[in-house]
Amino acid sequence: MFKSSAKAEVLKQIVDVVSTLVDEAKFNIDSEGISLKAVDPAHVAMVELSLRKEAFEEFEGDETELGIDLEKLREILKLAHTGDIVRLEHNEDKNQLIVKIGNVTRRMSLVDTAGISDPKVPNIDLPTTMRLKAEELNYGIRASESVSDHIALVADQDYFEMSSEGDSDSVDFRLPKDKLISLESKGKVRSLFPLDYFSNMSKAIASGNEVSINLGNNYPVKLEFDIADGNGHVKYLLAPRVES
Amino acid sequence: MFKSSAKAEVLKQIVDVVSTLVDEAKFNIDSEGISLKAVDPAHVAMVELSLRKEAFEEFEGDETELGIDLEKLREILKLAHTGDIVRLEHNEDKNQLIVKIGNVTRRMSLVDTAGISDPKVPNIDLPTTMRLKAEELNYGIRASESVSDHIALVADQDYFEMSSEGDSDSVDFRLPKDKLISLESKGKVRSLFPLDYFSNMSKAIASGNEVSINLGNNYPVKLEFDIADGNGHVKYLLAPRVES
Amino acid sequence: MFKSSAKAEVLKQIVDVVSTLVDEAKFNIDSEGISLKAVDPAHVAMVELSLRKEAFEEFEGDETELGIDLEKLREILKLAHTGDIVRLEHNEDKNQLIVKIGNVTRRMSLVDTAGISDPKVPNIDLPTTMRLKAEELNYGIRASESVSDHIALVADQDYFEMSSEGDSDSVDFRLPKDKLISLESKGKVRSLFPLDYFSNMSKAIASGNEVSINLGNNYPVKLEFDIADGNGHVKYLLAPRVES
Repeated sequence: MFKSSAKAEVLKQIVDVVSTLVDEAKFNIDSEGISLKAVDPAHVAMVELSLRKEAFEEFEGDETELGIDLEKLREILKLAHTGDIVRLEHNEDKNQLIVKIGNVTRRMSLVDTAGISDPKVPNIDLPTTMRLKAEELNYGIRASESVSDHIALVADQDYFEMSSEGDSDSVDFRLPKDKLISLESKGKVRSLFPLDYFSNMSKAIASGNEVSINLGNNYPVKLEFDIADGNGHVKYLLAPRVES
Repeated sequence: MFKSSAKAEVLKQIVDVVSTLVDEAKFNIDSEGISLKAVDPAHVAMVELSLRKEAFEEFEGDETELGIDLEKLREILKLAHTGDIVRLEHNEDKNQLIVKIGNVTRRMSLVDTAGISDPKVPNIDLPTTMRLKAEELNYGIRASESVSDHIALVADQDYFEMSSEGDSDSVDFRLPKDKLISLESKGKVRSLFPLDYFSNMSKAIASGNEVSINLGNNYPVKLEFDIADGNGHVKYLLAPRVES
Repeated sequence: MFKSSAKAEVLKQIVDVVSTLVDEAKFNIDSEGISLKAVDPAHVAMVELSLRKEAFEEFEGDETELGIDLEKLREILKLAHTGDIVRLEHNEDKNQLIVKIGNVTRRMSLVDTAGISDPKVPNIDLPTTMRLKAEELNYGIRASESVSDHIALVADQDYFEMSSEGDSDSVDFRLPKDKLISLESKGKVRSLFPLDYFSNMSKAIASGNEVSINLGNNYPVKLEFDIADGNGHVKYLLAPRVES
């Protein structure tokens, strides 16, 4: 059983975060809220999302799984105006999600969850941790975009740097410690990542938000941020590209 | 003879309304104003438009026909800013329409009206009549767009509903009587229509306007609305798709 | 040696003006500022640009040439917000231009200037001179756009006219002398130009600016305007199309 209502913005944010990596996802419902793990088809990146029932206006749920076509849900949510409340209800007999926005009732077939695997999110210990504004992250990505398909994330004790090296050109965007919200680092670390993945993940962070970055040496990067006024949390993990 | 001037907005609205169904149209001029009837190339929909001379700032006309390429006229009207007055004059010798906007003079060849037939608009008696805001109509169409190529219009004594049924999904947008401006219905009626035609017609209604819908059971739908501050009137007729 | 800083808007304007005709350009630096001459690949149009060191916040330069890929520089300048100061520095060893915007450092390879010729800008004496707002020029171009690929510029003692003649349609935009800032003409002149070139040149003039037009009979047209608050000057020269 699943029956809830939420602000359209909260649901749009979930779709933005998850659709960055997958087209369809399995949402795990229980009495406390919603959780989800997904890995992209190329197995380069993962997302782990949790949303407490407090993120909703109303929430009633028994343990169940909903396989959702994210593009379809995005289309439906476009019917909602800012501040609109969206009602969601699982029709178990027909395996449909019933979405109500104002006078609109939309019945959407759910996707078979048997085909959607539950990825194991590895527990990686990363030596460097920093926190910054999503805008800064996205600005650094934008600076790299015309130079290379890859972006290097570098941190030392007193700065965080995003840099790219092209055939003829190069760029770096260096934030000294005082431009970061926080930085904990025991020494220099550097890892290289595919720019498109890193860019898509960063764009899914609502502007105005803060993001935590965990970084190592030729290790995955972890991006963490809150959604739904702190009632939800997202972890992205992105595999590094080993430099030749 | 035809010589007139009008607010650019009035002329733009005419182009929007008629170009929904045809690329070229025959405008019938007489001393009282302009009228036009047109049917789309697939003979699925019709438009009937009348514009009293009061819709114009100045109007002088003898009985004559002007064959107008609507896309060309739309391009020209883009030169007008909001509130601009557009002068129109028929040059009979060269069969041109002379359009003046500010310091611009545009001479546009007219289309031969011999090839443009005058469709007979059937006089259909439809049992259900309602009136609503153009925004509501367009919202219901938008809700249907990702579900199916068809839209069912349903009305009963206490509601009007727009619904679509896809292979796996469905949607309905139901307006109870108190959300409508008026509703006169003796019982349930339902007809199915091609969504693209219905959508294009509805989009031609200026937002903020009201529209009357006349509906029957597996019968054409009639949309009626005013233009030019009530000095003009439009009727659209759209054939139903018989459900199998 | 070249080292300077300037408002992003000034550099963006230079890129807009020059990229209208060429993808890469040779910027001549000396202690007084920057100058540039370029001809488009089809040898139909020329640009001559000069920028005094007063256009910059800081300026230090010895005689040198910089070959710049304009599209690349445009991309970099998109990172600057309104009012941002952009630092430029020539790294002679690596033949790179180092561009700094806030915390971003972008190193851009320069283009070999050996392949970029210095066109001779002919000194043409044109009998008619007028001055008008860039908006008026662009409005007249817009009026011509759907009619023909060419635009005729016509001036007499009391008006300036832009007109186009298509197969079936024609348009003219006539500005009487009192709608111009100034007009000096000894008699009627008329020349025909390719609309795309003339349009691109005119669009490169920042709106709100004034432009001088020098015109003759079947002769090139010269457009002149200031940039960088009067600390820079641009001359465009466009060859006429001889009418058959």
